[in-house]
Amino acid sequence: MTPARQVVQRILAGRESHPKGSTTVYAPANIALVKYWGKRDEALNLPVTGSLSISLGPLGSHVELARGKGEEAGVWLNGKKLPTDSSFARRASAYLDLFRPAADFFFDLKARNTVPTAAGFASSASGFAALAKAVDGLFGWGLSMRELSILARLGSGSAARSLADGFVEWHAGTAPDGMDSFAERLDMEWPELRVGAVVLCSDEKPIGSREGMKRSVETCEFYREWPGRVARDLAALKTAIAKKDFAALGEVAEANALAMHALMAATRPPIVYALPETVAAMRKIWVAREGGLPVWFTMDAGPNVKLLFEARDEARVREWFPSVEVVAPFG
Amino acid sequence: MTPARQVVQRILAGRESHPKGSTTVYAPANIALVKYWGKRDEALNLPVTGSLSISLGPLGSHVELARGKGEEAGVWLNGKKLPTDSSFARRASAYLDLFRPAADFFFDLKARNTVPTAAGFASSASGFAALAKAVDGLFGWGLSMRELSILARLGSGSAARSLADGFVEWHAGTAPDGMDSFAERLDMEWPELRVGAVVLCSDEKPIGSREGMKRSVETCEFYREWPGRVARDLAALKTAIAKKDFAALGEVAEANALAMHALMAATRPPIVYALPETVAAMRKIWVAREGGLPVWFTMDAGPNVKLLFEARDEARVREWFPSVEVVAPFG
Repeated sequence: MTPARQVVQRILAGRESHPKGSTTVYAPANIALVKYWGKRDEALNLPVTGSLSISLGPLGSHVELARGKGEEAGVWLNGKKLPTDSSFARRASAYLDLFRPAADFFFDLKARNTVPTAAGFASSASGFAALAKAVDGLFGWGLSMRELSILARLGSGSAARSLADGFVEWHAGTAPDGMDSFAERLDMEWPELRVGAVVLCSDEKPIGSREGMKRSVETCEFYREWPGRVARDLAALKTAIAKKDFAALGEVAEANALAMHALMAATRPPIVYALPETVAAMRKIWVAREGGLPVWFTMDAGPNVKLLFEARDEARVREWFPSVEVVAPFG
Repeated sequence: MTPARQVVQRILAGRESHPKGSTTVYAPANIALVKYWGKRDEALNLPVTGSLSISLGPLGSHVELARGKGEEAGVWLNGKKLPTDSSFARRASAYLDLFRPAADFFFDLKARNTVPTAAGFASSASGFAALAKAVDGLFGWGLSMRELSILARLGSGSAARSLADGFVEWHAGTAPDGMDSFAERLDMEWPELRVGAVVLCSDEKPIGSREGMKRSVETCEFYREWPGRVARDLAALKTAIAKKDFAALGEVAEANALAMHALMAATRPPIVYALPETVAAMRKIWVAREGGLPVWFTMDAGPNVKLLFEARDEARVREWFPSVEVVAPFG
């Protein structure tokens, strides 16, 4: 039995199933302010460090999951039935297999992403979080957010952070089976907070996060300092959130993103997601900030830049970045 | 007495002077293949790590030094007499003061750089190396290359590597007075080697190396891994040079430069020398290399990219980079 299947069995042990014909759920995408880069366990997506994200409210994944009727069963994405050998269908099916109660049980999955993939927001986090919620809903187990977070993580690490809105902290944990590696919502509302996506390139990444992380952990000597750095950044970010100190939040998030991209660049062979346009956008943000506009940025494993600012500055931010797509994480 | 003046006295102790009226010397610029980033002593420019450079042959500093005749004494650069409060005149005068034999002794300095500053090659290394040679020549001390290297370092760290042509290794040393922190020429000729400067921007740097290094040492946690990384890169580079393995040389140099720029980016506040054009040039080099052209790059503390290639590929390199300025370090 695979390690992931063992985790599922442990969580479902003694649970009663109250199956329904179908269920509909939603999970938001998220963007990390203190990043997740590096696994300590590949099979269970256990991270080397904790991380802390902000959920993206209405941008996420809607999932309708039903018991399939024989050959009708399949995977739909945004209204289109996918070939069974497509990347998304294979990943989703492999994940659902972890929960399949019988060999003749088939799932019928209809997923719809409101995350604009072209805007450079990852949809795998919201996708797997929604799948975890959906199987829980379909079988009526009534799992806790903690348990759902552990199950979502089995599909994609950052999915652990997509079970709640607002600020979410994913605890790295230390247990080999990852039962202590789950995410929790921070008890803090910040309605004025805004996240802006600046889309520079929507091509597929030259190297995926899973492979990139592995390469950094194995070849980048700076990685040894990463866990300590993340611990300090997490503490500073939580203080900034508790005080609602936006400048402090921006500073930690931007510096942490730069440090992650530095790790990548010092990896062998190097991983450089930045495009010329990425550097131009970074420099523009620095010029705007020097000019008095409180705007910071973060970047995931890709070339696109995400702006962090407050509602009152939205008009000024749009002057600098007319094409920015703005999200209000707290609605 | 300043620490630098103490070093000068130690080196000159027991030396006879055989002064001449004037002397003319030359020192080449150099570009590090394994970088120098971080001082363990600010006053003596003692580095945390060793470094290894290639000299730039005909690109460097010509210096004519003479005993000045009272008010005629002064500093000329490229044929123009400089105001005494200009940056170059102040740095050169402060350096020459270390060697001034009497209060009424004045130097007359005429410097001419063949390093095209606009090409993004630093002239301070060749400038201070030439000054050290010039005072030695003027006073007829007959110092060794090791001693000249130590004296040149007092003016600018990387000047320690500008006393010889070819490959030059600067040993970090461990002595508090830096008497074991000097550079030596590697016994290796490599006539086919070429260095190409791709000029992207000749504006002054937003932050100088001295200040940038200090900030990295003080605030960048990745810096703790830098000495180990440099030690491994130095060993790999020396093996590549001994074997005349160009691909290995290029790989170490490029990875080491990326790691240094990663350190800078993870410094707080971040130091980012790259411009959009820098990233575009890096990516172009990677595309060219994937297409079979053996070209690598290095970058100093600035936005410009230096190509590393062999003579037989010069025409192909010029197709990719029509404006490249090519140097043959071994003549």
